[in-house]
Amino acid sequence: MATLKDLGEEGLLEIILPLLPRGSGLVIGAGDDAAVLAAPSAEEELLFKIDAVVSGVHFTPETPPELVGRKALARAISDMAAMAGEPRQALVSLALPKEIDPSWVVGLYNGLRQLAEYFGVGISGGELSSTAGPVTVTIALIGVVPLGGAVLRSGARAGDLLFVTGELGGSLTEHHLTFQPRVKEALWLAAHARPSAMMDLSDGLGKDLPRLAAASATGFCVNLHALPCRAGCGTQKALGDGEDFELLFALPPEKLASLAGWGKAFPNLPLTHIGEIVSQEKGYSFEPCGYDHFAQR
Amino acid sequence: MATLKDLGEEGLLEIILPLLPRGSGLVIGAGDDAAVLAAPSAEEELLFKIDAVVSGVHFTPETPPELVGRKALARAISDMAAMAGEPRQALVSLALPKEIDPSWVVGLYNGLRQLAEYFGVGISGGELSSTAGPVTVTIALIGVVPLGGAVLRSGARAGDLLFVTGELGGSLTEHHLTFQPRVKEALWLAAHARPSAMMDLSDGLGKDLPRLAAASATGFCVNLHALPCRAGCGTQKALGDGEDFELLFALPPEKLASLAGWGKAFPNLPLTHIGEIVSQEKGYSFEPCGYDHFAQR
Repeated sequence: MATLKDLGEEGLLEIILPLLPRGSGLVIGAGDDAAVLAAPSAEEELLFKIDAVVSGVHFTPETPPELVGRKALARAISDMAAMAGEPRQALVSLALPKEIDPSWVVGLYNGLRQLAEYFGVGISGGELSSTAGPVTVTIALIGVVPLGGAVLRSGARAGDLLFVTGELGGSLTEHHLTFQPRVKEALWLAAHARPSAMMDLSDGLGKDLPRLAAASATGFCVNLHALPCRAGCGTQKALGDGEDFELLFALPPEKLASLAGWGKAFPNLPLTHIGEIVSQEKGYSFEPCGYDHFAQR
Repeated sequence: MATLKDLGEEGLLEIILPLLPRGSGLVIGAGDDAAVLAAPSAEEELLFKIDAVVSGVHFTPETPPELVGRKALARAISDMAAMAGEPRQALVSLALPKEIDPSWVVGLYNGLRQLAEYFGVGISGGELSSTAGPVTVTIALIGVVPLGGAVLRSGARAGDLLFVTGELGGSLTEHHLTFQPRVKEALWLAAHARPSAMMDLSDGLGKDLPRLAAASATGFCVNLHALPCRAGCGTQKALGDGEDFELLFALPPEKLASLAGWGKAFPNLPLTHIGEIVSQEKGYSFEPCGYDHFAQR
């Protein structure tokens, strides 16, 4: 079977380039020194993200390449969702061992392409490097958000209610490769309820919620009994497994009614109230909130 | 000495984040799920590039980390110059072995920062991955160019004159780490002469010029005696060494007079006429152009 060394970079590019979706706003795509993209409108701002997956860390040599490509792009798209934005154009940097089978790379691009097309994302270019180490797939992603509309980690205030979408824990079995970035859900939340703070759960609620609280200069309390654990998972896995890629957001309590349409909009995706934001002095607590631990649920 | 494993990602970020220049147009920088950038004006388009350097390929473990950071960013900036654009905001993805000395990473960021500040580039975020392989530094870069003003590889026409900036060959001694991206020079050329095609020389004239010709559906002839070889280099090194990061451009002959001010604008950077674009049927020639090989020089 041909290796990358046999085929050469140019030979591989001839196979890959026709696979790339153009998306919207692409003026000049792959093949020049840089991609040229139409500027977003004056009513928008840009989102900009870079993210890498490394063989042996984020996937294994046995992972189907389609799922590696899918995961690499999905992680970056999830970050656009976390800002309540929409992904637009991606670039792909691959560090590849010389002995890799070119069909693996084509599989990777097929996985990238399918997810990109689902989200209307263009792949406007990329580059190849050789490496003596593991395969590394790095995605740069540009998105857009309405001017001033990005939902940051830093906007939570004491009294806000904390919610997560979906289920937590047990990602490693399959979810970390097949998760669906919550772009539509985040846009719905921004339009209907305007969360005060939001992020995607990449390292697990136990690590990520303290980051949101630190950015907002607040504390939090979480009712562990309320966590939406994936089947077969307990609280500790829901807190610590990571790679859930669900949305965590804070909502002022007076906006609670604005979530009423969630179940109709997303009948298959639970939305769970897991706790509250409290003042910074009260610190971080993974105990149920309030004096009477259960009465208020 | 502390390793990255001792310090942890959060500890390292506390050191790095204050080093990051904001540049222009930065709304929300490092620390959230994605950076938020102001949209360019309606009279501009975006340039978008990703590029990686890998230890053992683009630098060695002995290369000072400041020069590794400098090179990683300079390569991407050079691609913005190649499009006649200006770099604006960068993201940095690092794949690092666990045993790396954090001071190496801080050195890398110092090199990034110094070059970024020189070119007015902001560093709006990034991320860290662990790897069992070599250090890999991947840069995503956004730039801007006036609407319709990007100079592509594909615009050369038969009869155009071919020029290169600077000297070629021998990059490996030092130039590949210390080269200056030709941003000002490219902007000057776009404003004064408007080349029909342009690119930066990353793989050497012998590989890169055929790419420009292929993109333009033309042939070329190059007068090897005219090549501006770096001291100690002959023609073969000038053609094949790579990593010159000089500008190669094509200019319709009627615009030749518009280059008259070059020497005053850039007194220390030679501009050399090395050949001509010819029709595609005439193919690629590294022989002097024309019937009488020397009379026309």
